[in-house]
Amino acid sequence: MKAATIDFWFDFSSPYSYIASEWVEALAARHGRRVQWRAILLGATFQVSGLQPPANFPMKREYLFRDVRRSAAFAGVPIAIPDPFPIATQNAARVYWWLQAQDPLRAVAWARAGLRAYFTRGVNLMDIAQLKALCSEAGLDADAAESAWNDPQWKAALKSANDAAIAAGVFGAPFFMIDGEPFWGNDRQQQMEAWLTSGPPRGLD
Amino acid sequence: MKAATIDFWFDFSSPYSYIASEWVEALAARHGRRVQWRAILLGATFQVSGLQPPANFPMKREYLFRDVRRSAAFAGVPIAIPDPFPIATQNAARVYWWLQAQDPLRAVAWARAGLRAYFTRGVNLMDIAQLKALCSEAGLDADAAESAWNDPQWKAALKSANDAAIAAGVFGAPFFMIDGEPFWGNDRQQQMEAWLTSGPPRGLD
Repeated sequence: MKAATIDFWFDFSSPYSYIASEWVEALAARHGRRVQWRAILLGATFQVSGLQPPANFPMKREYLFRDVRRSAAFAGVPIAIPDPFPIATQNAARVYWWLQAQDPLRAVAWARAGLRAYFTRGVNLMDIAQLKALCSEAGLDADAAESAWNDPQWKAALKSANDAAIAAGVFGAPFFMIDGEPFWGNDRQQQMEAWLTSGPPRGLD
Repeated sequence: MKAATIDFWFDFSSPYSYIASEWVEALAARHGRRVQWRAILLGATFQVSGLQPPANFPMKREYLFRDVRRSAAFAGVPIAIPDPFPIATQNAARVYWWLQAQDPLRAVAWARAGLRAYFTRGVNLMDIAQLKALCSEAGLDADAAESAWNDPQWKAALKSANDAAIAAGVFGAPFFMIDGEPFWGNDRQQQMEAWLTSGPPRGLD
């Protein structure tokens, strides 16, 4: 029997998704689970939910940068807030789904490479030259990757992933689903661990 | 020497503030700190920050209710999502500042009574009759409390608290400040505990 999954929705431009991407596999392994990574565009969920990126609000943006750095430090994850931030990440996300159809492990390796490159070295995933260089560095055929992100098939695959996320109630990232229970945010790690260990807390029907 | 404070901004209509109100005193006591409770109106911070209450967004609202109940259960705090929710809480907040000027301990007792009444029994703090009944139950002179919330002096005190919160960078609740470090959300308890124990994590300058 296949291990039950933890669904993990992320956007390549989401710093809390990056932090979570560094602990989610270990969390799953501790509980005999498999992680289903799902690259999405938060922009698509924002359109439907009516929400906006937190960095659009100056007061929240200032706190966000501090909290991201502090949350990363507490999680033991290196981070440098990139500039520009945020960026549009549809090409990186299409590469994810292109790889996912061929070899899910390579797709996850790409997701981690992309998140780490943007959030530790400021590699701009929106910049074609930088994205192609990162593809090569990650052992991919950069021209094939570029063809993939321009291919209607992988554009449709990403759109379909966004639509499925929205249908599942996803309005932010990282977003997780464990046996039908939704968890939003890097800061839900502790609740997810408790849920995986013991199920719902007493008093929650 | 007076113990250093933990500033704690809350709104009587904020469920995560209610959950935090049930652990913040114990947290402070473990570290020899004193809690400075600060009743505010999130509506005032929203106007300045451009943000909106999360419950205004249907997708977020649905998650919020689930997450509030789960977070309360994990914290061991009883909760029943009240109806109506959210409500305007200026009168309860003015009573807080009125009491604070006379006797800070009674003000804190009132804050806890108000939060618990709304979030465990659905007492509508916006309803004059219910609010006066709650004042009596809490051992206050309900007519004097009503005079206070209609008094320009305590209206001004609340406005001044809102302005000070905004000046300090507060854009949501619960919001905490420890030695100049801002923490937003019930879910920052763990980071606050670590900060109080050991100061900033390594890697955070």
